[in-house]
Amino acid sequence: MNVLIVHAHPEPQSFCAAMCTVATEHLRAMGHQVRVSDLYAVGFNPVASAADFQQRHNPDHLVYALEQRHAQANGTLAADVRGELAKLLWCDLVIFNFPIFWFSVPAMLKGWIDRVLVSGVVYGGKRFYDRGGLEGKKAMLAVTIGGQSHMFTSDGVHGPLNDMLKPLLQGTLGYAGLSVLPPFVAWHVPYISAAERGHILADYRARLDSLDSATPLPMPSLAHFDERMRPLG
Amino acid sequence: MNVLIVHAHPEPQSFCAAMCTVATEHLRAMGHQVRVSDLYAVGFNPVASAADFQQRHNPDHLVYALEQRHAQANGTLAADVRGELAKLLWCDLVIFNFPIFWFSVPAMLKGWIDRVLVSGVVYGGKRFYDRGGLEGKKAMLAVTIGGQSHMFTSDGVHGPLNDMLKPLLQGTLGYAGLSVLPPFVAWHVPYISAAERGHILADYRARLDSLDSATPLPMPSLAHFDERMRPLG
Repeated sequence: MNVLIVHAHPEPQSFCAAMCTVATEHLRAMGHQVRVSDLYAVGFNPVASAADFQQRHNPDHLVYALEQRHAQANGTLAADVRGELAKLLWCDLVIFNFPIFWFSVPAMLKGWIDRVLVSGVVYGGKRFYDRGGLEGKKAMLAVTIGGQSHMFTSDGVHGPLNDMLKPLLQGTLGYAGLSVLPPFVAWHVPYISAAERGHILADYRARLDSLDSATPLPMPSLAHFDERMRPLG
Repeated sequence: MNVLIVHAHPEPQSFCAAMCTVATEHLRAMGHQVRVSDLYAVGFNPVASAADFQQRHNPDHLVYALEQRHAQANGTLAADVRGELAKLLWCDLVIFNFPIFWFSVPAMLKGWIDRVLVSGVVYGGKRFYDRGGLEGKKAMLAVTIGGQSHMFTSDGVHGPLNDMLKPLLQGTLGYAGLSVLPPFVAWHVPYISAAERGHILADYRARLDSLDSATPLPMPSLAHFDERMRPLG
């Protein structure tokens, strides 16, 4: 299997970075090909803007998704976006490895999503969810979080973590056509002992061993909607 | 009332930018004080990193929230963060004006959230939700989106928009203690006529006229949880 790990943490010595290293080494030991996009290390630019397009379809008014389609069709996507998109299209599994900031991805990783999930390739027109451009590939989140798991139950103070992650799990990964595996969550990370961290890394290796048998999260299917996206009787 | 509008769109001529202008002018005509943070115009840096802290609490290992608390206590927050935080603390109402990118905020605005909602001021320890640091202030989203409203009903293909926006509405704004007003949503923007856009701007003015009577979205209350955040019997 070809695996891309997109990693976004500002501290190279963080536990989150250790998770990235563990996954890289363990997946390679299993015989998989692994590439890592370490967004902070390469100083990735997370800002979607007109600067992404040297040759504009409409130089007077930027509609970002339309310029993405134009640039993709003409081979004029920005070099960094082209490089990341090539890695994404190469992989069978993409792992997003990051610390939860405000119940979501850090801006650095949101910028990768905004810029690299290119309209006309990853989605566009009626190509989303089970007709999305990345259909056939898998995705998984591997996250660290300060909170404890009991705060994310259905009667917990925040509600289920997967509800908080819906725009990412469904609205981004599922929308793009990916089979989305359940997130691997390292809870309470800033407050736990080295021994507890070791247990989490062991759990993560075990999760990576069982990727093939993991059941993807349920996603909407366009088969249940008409051409105007109205529910079928 | 003091109003801060945080605006994040890469195209100055966009309909989203027109919404920002309409809100600024209309709120001023109503007698309110308005400041606008136009994040693309000022080239805001959205990347939370070690570069935000000249004087480190722990120079060897970055824990972003801990360095925020240290920098805040010592007056060494980065100048741009300090400026934005001062505007946030000045305002009675903050409006986030942006296009929905991947069912969420653009990376530019996520970076404002990551960097400006400073630990030790906005939240920290047991200070969140109805004990959050911004308690007493209001917040509202004003967004543009490509989709149509029928795609965001409970039986629509994406489910309710407010569910997609939960990490923002509850996990960020509610968490910080803000009273969160229902979002103002401009649907289907790339595909509608100038006349339809005019109707949306008129609807937006009417919404701004009735801010005082708007009912905030329900949020969790810490009164229902014990000190360890377990639900009270």
